[in-house]
Amino acid sequence: MKIPVGILGATGSVGQKFIQLLSDHPWFEINSVAASERSAGKKYRDAVNWFMTAPIPETVADLTIRTCEPELPCKIVFSGLDASVAGDIETEFAKAGYVVISNSRNHRFDPDVPLLIPEVNSDHLKLIEQQKYGDGCIVTNPNCSTIGMTLALKPLHDAFGIAAVNVVTLQALSGAGYPGVASLDIIDNVLPFISNEEPKMESEPLKILGSLNGDKIDFADFPISAQCNRIPVLDGHLECLSVTLKQKASADQLISAWKNFSGEPQKMDLPLAPKQPIYYFEQNNLPQPKLQRNLDKGMAVSIGRLRECPIFDYKFVILSHNTIRGAAGGAILNAEIMVKKKLIDL
Amino acid sequence: MKIPVGILGATGSVGQKFIQLLSDHPWFEINSVAASERSAGKKYRDAVNWFMTAPIPETVADLTIRTCEPELPCKIVFSGLDASVAGDIETEFAKAGYVVISNSRNHRFDPDVPLLIPEVNSDHLKLIEQQKYGDGCIVTNPNCSTIGMTLALKPLHDAFGIAAVNVVTLQALSGAGYPGVASLDIIDNVLPFISNEEPKMESEPLKILGSLNGDKIDFADFPISAQCNRIPVLDGHLECLSVTLKQKASADQLISAWKNFSGEPQKMDLPLAPKQPIYYFEQNNLPQPKLQRNLDKGMAVSIGRLRECPIFDYKFVILSHNTIRGAAGGAILNAEIMVKKKLIDL
Amino acid sequence: MKIPVGILGATGSVGQKFIQLLSDHPWFEINSVAASERSAGKKYRDAVNWFMTAPIPETVADLTIRTCEPELPCKIVFSGLDASVAGDIETEFAKAGYVVISNSRNHRFDPDVPLLIPEVNSDHLKLIEQQKYGDGCIVTNPNCSTIGMTLALKPLHDAFGIAAVNVVTLQALSGAGYPGVASLDIIDNVLPFISNEEPKMESEPLKILGSLNGDKIDFADFPISAQCNRIPVLDGHLECLSVTLKQKASADQLISAWKNFSGEPQKMDLPLAPKQPIYYFEQNNLPQPKLQRNLDKGMAVSIGRLRECPIFDYKFVILSHNTIRGAAGGAILNAEIMVKKKLIDL
Amino acid sequence: MKIPVGILGATGSVGQKFIQLLSDHPWFEINSVAASERSAGKKYRDAVNWFMTAPIPETVADLTIRTCEPELPCKIVFSGLDASVAGDIETEFAKAGYVVISNSRNHRFDPDVPLLIPEVNSDHLKLIEQQKYGDGCIVTNPNCSTIGMTLALKPLHDAFGIAAVNVVTLQALSGAGYPGVASLDIIDNVLPFISNEEPKMESEPLKILGSLNGDKIDFADFPISAQCNRIPVLDGHLECLSVTLKQKASADQLISAWKNFSGEPQKMDLPLAPKQPIYYFEQNNLPQPKLQRNLDKGMAVSIGRLRECPIFDYKFVILSHNTIRGAAGGAILNAEIMVKKKLIDL
Repeated sequence: MKIPVGILGATGSVGQKFIQLLSDHPWFEINSVAASERSAGKKYRDAVNWFMTAPIPETVADLTIRTCEPELPCKIVFSGLDASVAGDIETEFAKAGYVVISNSRNHRFDPDVPLLIPEVNSDHLKLIEQQKYGDGCIVTNPNCSTIGMTLALKPLHDAFGIAAVNVVTLQALSGAGYPGVASLDIIDNVLPFISNEEPKMESEPLKILGSLNGDKIDFADFPISAQCNRIPVLDGHLECLSVTLKQKASADQLISAWKNFSGEPQKMDLPLAPKQPIYYFEQNNLPQPKLQRNLDKGMAVSIGRLRECPIFDYKFVILSHNTIRGAAGGAILNAEIMVKKKLIDL
Repeated sequence: MKIPVGILGATGSVGQKFIQLLSDHPWFEINSVAASERSAGKKYRDAVNWFMTAPIPETVADLTIRTCEPELPCKIVFSGLDASVAGDIETEFAKAGYVVISNSRNHRFDPDVPLLIPEVNSDHLKLIEQQKYGDGCIVTNPNCSTIGMTLALKPLHDAFGIAAVNVVTLQALSGAGYPGVASLDIIDNVLPFISNEEPKMESEPLKILGSLNGDKIDFADFPISAQCNRIPVLDGHLECLSVTLKQKASADQLISAWKNFSGEPQKMDLPLAPKQPIYYFEQNNLPQPKLQRNLDKGMAVSIGRLRECPIFDYKFVILSHNTIRGAAGGAILNAEIMVKKKLIDL
Repeated sequence: MKIPVGILGATGSVGQKFIQLLSDHPWFEINSVAASERSAGKKYRDAVNWFMTAPIPETVADLTIRTCEPELPCKIVFSGLDASVAGDIETEFAKAGYVVISNSRNHRFDPDVPLLIPEVNSDHLKLIEQQKYGDGCIVTNPNCSTIGMTLALKPLHDAFGIAAVNVVTLQALSGAGYPGVASLDIIDNVLPFISNEEPKMESEPLKILGSLNGDKIDFADFPISAQCNRIPVLDGHLECLSVTLKQKASADQLISAWKNFSGEPQKMDLPLAPKQPIYYFEQNNLPQPKLQRNLDKGMAVSIGRLRECPIFDYKFVILSHNTIRGAAGGAILNAEIMVKKKLIDL
Repeated sequence: MKIPVGILGATGSVGQKFIQLLSDHPWFEINSVAASERSAGKKYRDAVNWFMTAPIPETVADLTIRTCEPELPCKIVFSGLDASVAGDIETEFAKAGYVVISNSRNHRFDPDVPLLIPEVNSDHLKLIEQQKYGDGCIVTNPNCSTIGMTLALKPLHDAFGIAAVNVVTLQALSGAGYPGVASLDIIDNVLPFISNEEPKMESEPLKILGSLNGDKIDFADFPISAQCNRIPVLDGHLECLSVTLKQKASADQLISAWKNFSGEPQKMDLPLAPKQPIYYFEQNNLPQPKLQRNLDKGMAVSIGRLRECPIFDYKFVILSHNTIRGAAGGAILNAEIMVKKKLIDL
């Protein structure tokens, strides 16, 4: 008997990815899909402009879409709602007793809401106890460009302390949703601006890498500077990082810290956990979006090109799949760890 | 009566760009083309795999290709030779009395060779007097990714002093020559490594921004850290810079410094000089390769997105056309200023 | 003193192309721009999402946008209106005495409206006399994928007679307008369907190649079968044609017919007329969109790969610029020939 | 105990695909890899420029590359050799008693060599008996652009008879091998010519669809006209076909013929056999390379857009994965059916 789950914003691009990734999940089974008034009442297959490469799972295709009201026959809902509506709807669901696993940005900085990467800060789940939602709760995952970076920084932060981070991104088109970026705007081109993206990258890692102090998070305290670009790549965010550490460390020490990094999802052997959260590549032209984005189910972060920096201590390149590890897959891993830790009253 | 010029490496990608840009030049006229033994003796149109979008100029198409020996019927030669052979051939031509305007990297750091961007360091042309080539000489232009950055830094360096520069590039495919990057390697992908590119970006600006001190250059002294990426864009290098200045300056002061920047090529109204070397764009999503690369004949640098940086003082984005301003066009401008300054004995 | 003209649908993609192509036109000068209620009242520069590669012409940028009502201070209007509104608005303008040069499909098959390619059927302009619009009239140009094909067929039709045509297209993204095709739908992909495109290609050439018979057109009578695909190319429609002729002809005769083809625009030396409407390329890998689309101001058709066909008589490849020759440029040429023939009472 | 197999041309693009597809094959296990003198003696991982998206299988990575001489410790060899050398080497291996499963074109039209698509003409395997190679033999698969077309034609040929076929292709880049097409030649472009491709498409289906008549093949007898284009798509050949049938048939009858089509590989449930060789899509914008190329392990052909044609009887669009069904996967299926039919003396 699988655990029934619902999808909020089921017809959107994140919603579709949730459905694709949950199609053969060993624990969860989608029994309800909710979307806007416009789609409600239709069969999912008729309402959705499905653009995943795998076909719509048959069990979902025939579900009738519901409105986003807290009357779904399940306990856990995954939210891929647009930020323009996610805030209120997610609150309503939590109040009504649902466990809301959200990919939206609205509640990420609520003091009592974990901004969760299970390998990094699963102890932050304790914040849920502060939430005033009774049986319900809200747990969020970070922005797609934050997750890869923060996973790469975590082992360095633990071992050596981080003093400063500069990052320039080359981000994939799927991060903009659908229809997203017009082909006339991006073929043979770069867009050197992504609305709201830099502030997220400069703030979210500080909460995630912060320490749980009683019933609140003490944010990490180092400056991050981000420059974000959209490039003609379908999936996979590549990021060029520069980092200054608090303690001196050799390149080999950094690589060891990454290779040996492992978290609770690995120990618990969660279904969507990558075997290894971080892979380091010795070849000087890796990682590349096309070659590494799907590594370990699209849930691993690939790092390469570690070298000394004349300004910071080190510079390197990271890559992660923005719609799997960076969105729907990351959210599912959040739900998995909560189930395993028995934080959900099923 | 135009000045006859020759092209070394005439069938390569830089050679072709020289020929395209010189096809209707008001001062220069190509009367000789030289390439490897394999092509020598053939008509240019038969030997070249021409891939410029404009057709081969008729006057060049019928020229018979010569070998790269210093027996060309001209005084000025433009060199688009591959670095594997450029060093010796250019030296031979200089010794034989030719003015060698080179796009190759081999002689860029010879102490007596100007590494020239005419708007930036035309005074460095005085170095030629140190050269031991009699009537001949060698003048080089910087690497394609260096030129845009150095033009953008020059007004800041003069007005405020530069203390440190971090740069991450998103470079176009034409920078790799022809055939260059395989389509299977770059469509839907990024290559996070370009051989030898980062060391050039970290060293060349220091010579260019250095001061002429008697008969030598005192290099500028600030650290530069570069990370270089190849992306699926045909032409136009985009660069994300971060800069710390020696003196405090407001964003408006930086923008003014850029907008008011002008150099000798502008005063002399040289044929290939842009009206304005630097354009600043207020829109938050500019510059873009497709929209600004051809600005002012492809010879201008476009800058945008100036904003404060939590680590450096400021960050911003620059764009320049890598095969025009960054290679053949830059070299032609070098020749133009030398002619105008009567440094060539015609 | 230039002739003042207005643009209907001035903020759309065809409208922008009209403005770009007319920016330095020797005869015409834009003095009014009209668009939807939403844009009316704003300065053009503030209302438009300009995405041409050349900047907005200064004289147009400051024009205040008007509504599409027939109160513009000019005699000639170019219409780039969307088909959903073009029909009625164009009729109103014609009734009010305007010469409407339309790129929209609505009136193309009105019996008294010329469907005009000036090199092909300028005699069809006589149809205007049948129009009941007083001083005003409507003249249309064909669909972007029709123009290149029909220009290529015209010399064959005249010399040998056409019995049947099969055509498969590889069409550029700019043909879909802006924002048009989502990047997620077309990078690394083909869309094997373009709404309404095949019926246009199968019918429009028959009117254009038809004969003026008194006050009406006798349509040409041969079957055309079209299959249309959208591919990841920015500009330039490539088409693979197969043709059966009524009379036997050698490949050389076909090539001669193309090379010697010329029309009234060439004789009249109209500003936007290509020197030669058709270029034939001997190289077996031409024409290519990137290399030939801008040939002769983007107004020429390029043909290549003529060879015998085991089913039809011959097969070959054609290329034309879909937004210049195939849309705005074609419409402007229509206006030019009407002015030159004194069909417009200025 | 798996059957040991060898790969000829193991470092090339087809060789790599063989290795990728065989990495977890239930019957076959690669125990030897052979390539040119240049690579021989090196470990596979050191000699190959691996560009598949999955990593090199560990068991293959450490194999020492051998020369292409018939001294490999296996009975079956898969040949991905370049056509410039494949002819002789494959003959030598066959003479030495090897079963050569070749993807190369050299022996395709040898009268005693089956040109095999197992769903279409498995009876042609009887030709092997005519071969003079003792225990050894040569079996070939068709060109990548032929396979999809021929699978689509087979059910029509059987049910209604084919009178004529016109085909225009939009072919993926991986069909050109590695490095293959330069990115500068194909981004924002089409190459309307692929060397030797059209003759293959016009001849190979006639052998494949021919009838076994005693010890030889009577070729099918209908004209095929092909026009081949290379487009900026990584994998998946899309083809626009037009067909005239010998007997009248309704569109529904054609669709039924495709949907009900099945062959020996399906009956035998071969490991790489698609469940269904042909899928028909009702949506008017399918099939698309990105959405359907990997359907049923990349071994199925997708068809869509069937509609009447004003010249032929019908036109439609097909898609197949060019390096899986169209090359390495097709060859492996050939080996599978031979094993199952006990045609190989293991």
